[in-house]
Amino acid sequence: MAGNTFGKIFSITTCGESHGGALGVIIDGCPAGLKISHEDIQKELDRRKPGQSILTTARQEEDKIQILSGVSDGVTTGAPILLLTFNKDAKSEDYLHLKDLYRPGHADFTYEKKFGLREWRGGGRSSARETLARVAAGAIAKKYLQEIAGISFLGYIEKIGDIQAQVDYKKINIQDVEANIVRCPDEKAAEKMIELINDVRSQGDSIGGVVFCAIKNVPLGLGEPVFDKLPADLAKAMLSINATKGFEIGAGFSAVNMRGSENNDSFYTDEKGIIHTKTNNCGGTLGGISNGEDIYFRVAFKPTPTIAKEQDTIDKNGQNVKLKAAGRHDPCVALRAVPVVEAMTALVIMDHYLRYKK
Amino acid sequence: MAGNTFGKIFSITTCGESHGGALGVIIDGCPAGLKISHEDIQKELDRRKPGQSILTTARQEEDKIQILSGVSDGVTTGAPILLLTFNKDAKSEDYLHLKDLYRPGHADFTYEKKFGLREWRGGGRSSARETLARVAAGAIAKKYLQEIAGISFLGYIEKIGDIQAQVDYKKINIQDVEANIVRCPDEKAAEKMIELINDVRSQGDSIGGVVFCAIKNVPLGLGEPVFDKLPADLAKAMLSINATKGFEIGAGFSAVNMRGSENNDSFYTDEKGIIHTKTNNCGGTLGGISNGEDIYFRVAFKPTPTIAKEQDTIDKNGQNVKLKAAGRHDPCVALRAVPVVEAMTALVIMDHYLRYKK
Amino acid sequence: MAGNTFGKIFSITTCGESHGGALGVIIDGCPAGLKISHEDIQKELDRRKPGQSILTTARQEEDKIQILSGVSDGVTTGAPILLLTFNKDAKSEDYLHLKDLYRPGHADFTYEKKFGLREWRGGGRSSARETLARVAAGAIAKKYLQEIAGISFLGYIEKIGDIQAQVDYKKINIQDVEANIVRCPDEKAAEKMIELINDVRSQGDSIGGVVFCAIKNVPLGLGEPVFDKLPADLAKAMLSINATKGFEIGAGFSAVNMRGSENNDSFYTDEKGIIHTKTNNCGGTLGGISNGEDIYFRVAFKPTPTIAKEQDTIDKNGQNVKLKAAGRHDPCVALRAVPVVEAMTALVIMDHYLRYKK
Amino acid sequence: MAGNTFGKIFSITTCGESHGGALGVIIDGCPAGLKISHEDIQKELDRRKPGQSILTTARQEEDKIQILSGVSDGVTTGAPILLLTFNKDAKSEDYLHLKDLYRPGHADFTYEKKFGLREWRGGGRSSARETLARVAAGAIAKKYLQEIAGISFLGYIEKIGDIQAQVDYKKINIQDVEANIVRCPDEKAAEKMIELINDVRSQGDSIGGVVFCAIKNVPLGLGEPVFDKLPADLAKAMLSINATKGFEIGAGFSAVNMRGSENNDSFYTDEKGIIHTKTNNCGGTLGGISNGEDIYFRVAFKPTPTIAKEQDTIDKNGQNVKLKAAGRHDPCVALRAVPVVEAMTALVIMDHYLRYKK
Repeated sequence: MAGNTFGKIFSITTCGESHGGALGVIIDGCPAGLKISHEDIQKELDRRKPGQSILTTARQEEDKIQILSGVSDGVTTGAPILLLTFNKDAKSEDYLHLKDLYRPGHADFTYEKKFGLREWRGGGRSSARETLARVAAGAIAKKYLQEIAGISFLGYIEKIGDIQAQVDYKKINIQDVEANIVRCPDEKAAEKMIELINDVRSQGDSIGGVVFCAIKNVPLGLGEPVFDKLPADLAKAMLSINATKGFEIGAGFSAVNMRGSENNDSFYTDEKGIIHTKTNNCGGTLGGISNGEDIYFRVAFKPTPTIAKEQDTIDKNGQNVKLKAAGRHDPCVALRAVPVVEAMTALVIMDHYLRYKK
Repeated sequence: MAGNTFGKIFSITTCGESHGGALGVIIDGCPAGLKISHEDIQKELDRRKPGQSILTTARQEEDKIQILSGVSDGVTTGAPILLLTFNKDAKSEDYLHLKDLYRPGHADFTYEKKFGLREWRGGGRSSARETLARVAAGAIAKKYLQEIAGISFLGYIEKIGDIQAQVDYKKINIQDVEANIVRCPDEKAAEKMIELINDVRSQGDSIGGVVFCAIKNVPLGLGEPVFDKLPADLAKAMLSINATKGFEIGAGFSAVNMRGSENNDSFYTDEKGIIHTKTNNCGGTLGGISNGEDIYFRVAFKPTPTIAKEQDTIDKNGQNVKLKAAGRHDPCVALRAVPVVEAMTALVIMDHYLRYKK
Repeated sequence: MAGNTFGKIFSITTCGESHGGALGVIIDGCPAGLKISHEDIQKELDRRKPGQSILTTARQEEDKIQILSGVSDGVTTGAPILLLTFNKDAKSEDYLHLKDLYRPGHADFTYEKKFGLREWRGGGRSSARETLARVAAGAIAKKYLQEIAGISFLGYIEKIGDIQAQVDYKKINIQDVEANIVRCPDEKAAEKMIELINDVRSQGDSIGGVVFCAIKNVPLGLGEPVFDKLPADLAKAMLSINATKGFEIGAGFSAVNMRGSENNDSFYTDEKGIIHTKTNNCGGTLGGISNGEDIYFRVAFKPTPTIAKEQDTIDKNGQNVKLKAAGRHDPCVALRAVPVVEAMTALVIMDHYLRYKK
Repeated sequence: MAGNTFGKIFSITTCGESHGGALGVIIDGCPAGLKISHEDIQKELDRRKPGQSILTTARQEEDKIQILSGVSDGVTTGAPILLLTFNKDAKSEDYLHLKDLYRPGHADFTYEKKFGLREWRGGGRSSARETLARVAAGAIAKKYLQEIAGISFLGYIEKIGDIQAQVDYKKINIQDVEANIVRCPDEKAAEKMIELINDVRSQGDSIGGVVFCAIKNVPLGLGEPVFDKLPADLAKAMLSINATKGFEIGAGFSAVNMRGSENNDSFYTDEKGIIHTKTNNCGGTLGGISNGEDIYFRVAFKPTPTIAKEQDTIDKNGQNVKLKAAGRHDPCVALRAVPVVEAMTALVIMDHYLRYKK
């Protein structure tokens, strides 16, 4: 039983491979009456597309989106929405020498064993190119949530390797994030990160990173006990993204070393009579349900498995071979993952918004 | 749209509140022909039940399980299985003084706002007592996987507060884990943990912890691209457990600071001709699919929000009030969570085993 | 992959066998705040229970319902609701001589081949006793829909064998239906039906019937294109009931012989400015969506397969054997199916009501 | 919560409107390793496409299919399959005069009220043009089932208006069905049907029909108690097709007038030791599970609601208006529905085949 559908009420089903005909997504459950333009979607895809800077892969893809159903006269009709991008710069020949190898850290081995065959061109379905469809769908979720409920999403790079940024997410916006090519709103840290990535890349290597994401203006009440808690669905969404290794919400792993008296967020009533918590160690949810505070979490990305350095591996016959270089790639996959994290977050919130509010 | 069902093929639907009539679970999709006894289930419930040691809550519940359908002559028939435990020691009066308060760190506030009313007795559905049903269902998954495929699950406490255990999970078994009341197989660390928890408790406070969990002998091929990746479903399972704040698989957050050349797990062929990886930074999955190595991950638990110390909070009218003591509770919720983590893990693996193998 | 869950937002998962420990249902997604008493549920179960008249099986079951979760102080809390009935009069010995036979028209053969074993006591899960859980859950759906939206359900027997009742469903109510033991509001036809069933029973035989069901006061807009059309979900609901062989909505099979000009229901605006159709050949839905008119449909029930007459069949070894008598049974299963049809209808409407209105 | 996905393991999600950009379907869960060519799909679409004969609509659409993902080197990879057809002959201007009317028998009224707006061009999503995606997906299911299990599907017209064909489905094949333009393998009845349809059309009217469908060589064991019984899922599949009003399996509504002794299908063992039933009144399922006999059922189609005759209706303001002519259409929608019925049947069987066999 496959798993290419995400969400229960706002539900996306995606398709497409790195080097196949097209990448697509059918969105089912988008309310009627939402204005949607190509630009709404394209602007998010442009943040994800390859070739944005010297720190990303050289693959050239315009990633132009087509809206083929569900939108009429610029407005959603309640019918399923098909978004499609045709692949253009798919260089299969780059992968020919990898056809019979298992690249370390990649899904070549597991896909081949699971499915009995493998699309070797660009990793096929296992390629992160698949996330294009998520970003396209996420753009619609973002627009809806912004317009209907004023909910917004803000992701950025908080850490690359051992370089930790110092950022107060409440004080920044997307312009601060997009101000540099590592999407880190702490300018000093950003400079060091760029230096580090360049350094790593020149060694033919790659490096990991942490994406921080905040959701602002979340309504109280999202999240469904006991399995579809909001943190549970966010965790699933994040760990479904290529190259992710960890998720933590609010104080996360650092809550382990706190006392209950320290970690508990006390309630108070503000001057407008609205109930808030003084601190936000919980990260905006209690019992798996949003409490009206901002939600924030962190996602760990491993270093890109594709590197230029020579590696030991085996071929299909189990024989030892040396692998060197392997297709165009990003030295730090976390950078382009920022809009993907935001998109998956928007999809989770959108689904829960409709589950709760309808 | 509620969320009390977990799993797609091996699917559990749970019910029950802390102080309601009973806790139950219907398991749908269990293959016919599996021998199941009360003891198979009871032994897991006994690991989770309250009152096991001085470090757990004083609530007395035998948690005796009844098997009411789906099993005939001691064997599963393919029909849905109902497991039920009646509540015995539900002391509603303990909660009467909390009826109109919002306890910090608890779901009182969010449940009341979401549902328009709140079961104040013991936290109702938001109580971790709900996890009893998960453990009962997990016992059946464990038995099936052990018998059919030799898959086993091993959870233990790796960290309490700042006390970090040093354990090689490959060298221990469940007896080592259950050898002490903190379920930590590193004896020296266990002593310090016990001391810390006692200390914290005597202060009327609580403390967090990390549960480590390994799955041994996992078949190659479990996990479904692109959303139902094995780490994604494990992450969701873990973050759906009460009091969890983080999840990481394999090297997890520490992979962020690794180079690709360091993090990538090289393939080799062993003497039996089986393909393995030399290291296991990925934690047993590639592209979201199990690669035949052990799977291991960590789960962060926050300190129990119920503490004896006085706390500031508000009542239903938004007025400031002092809260002291609040029902019977565990000073470190992570301890009793070990069998819960194992159970949820078994449910995920069972579901994916049937999704893949049928 | 099993199939014991029905509904997407108002979702029921049932369990239990004819001669097992209990029959149960977990209802997930019932809105909080609905008053529910035992009586609300029991009165529907009493319509379905065995031993109501000389025309039904002699099995004695009180079918007393227990509400074990999800309801607190008589009100639903939004948590899953467990309804349970313990089996009392399960006479396994009645079935001992059937243990190694395949009864014609029953599921003995298919269950055994599918699951590798068979619960021979009373047919196990394949027994229509399973429908008790549906009726219990349906009672809650009925109450909600009546209270919130004034929607009501009316089922009755329209045909037994070749005896066709003449009824205008708009002019009758449940008292008219329950006025006689065949649940047929056409008194003259009812007399003939009773005579026919008695006649058939005295011959050791059984007979089929048609249940008519109307839904009054359905809001406009229920039903989801393109697969979850309201007639599609009703058809599935009906064909999931034991012994059903057909479903037709509105003019049904008789529409085949109509011209479009005759079958089309013209629109008009009534004195209150509400849009109606002059006729209702469509049965209350257009494009799979309720149009605000009454919904009505018919369900065909085959004669009870259990008969007293001697029949040819085979045993597990494929040897020819004679089968005579086979457990307690109803000579006309359609009679007790009336509340089951209503319950399944209520479950479909409830689910679609919440899918549309939330 | 929308409903554009069908199937649980072999799952299709469709999109597209009559006059939108494209019609598409993503198929998730197709096993890897199946050879698929354009021709495999196109041949089924050609049976459904408009303009096949004088008895179908004049709309000209080549309905050329594109396979855009999930198939590599002519073989399925296990990844989701995207099939797409761009609309070519969409004449929106034909519908301009209908923009503010509600056509009787159509979904204009219900869509507009449900979604708050309506795609008036060709009925948008409510058009039967949507079934193209079902037929495309069904072609893949058919191919798989034929190759793996030798299962085949045979649909034909059994009745148009009051003209009833006499056919033994066991003695005919698809060539017999496709031998005439009404797809009725009883040549004499076919002639009368053609005459009737021509007659009806010349009057500017339309007529209904019954599609009979048989599934040959069905393995024992398909169908999942208690809700996902095979007849239940077939019934849903059929009633989800545009213009359907009824479904009956096996003896169907005629079983109502049978005695149990007459309706029960006796078991016997054939010369090869295989268990069969002497008759097949049940239509190939017992307890909702296939028993190894052929499955057969009937589907009632209403007359096409679009007619050339003048009709009374109302406009958006509730004012009475006359409606005459309304876009290109078929005088008997049942004819082109034959491949749609087969496709939906194949999708149900495919899903249950994978649910049972994996």
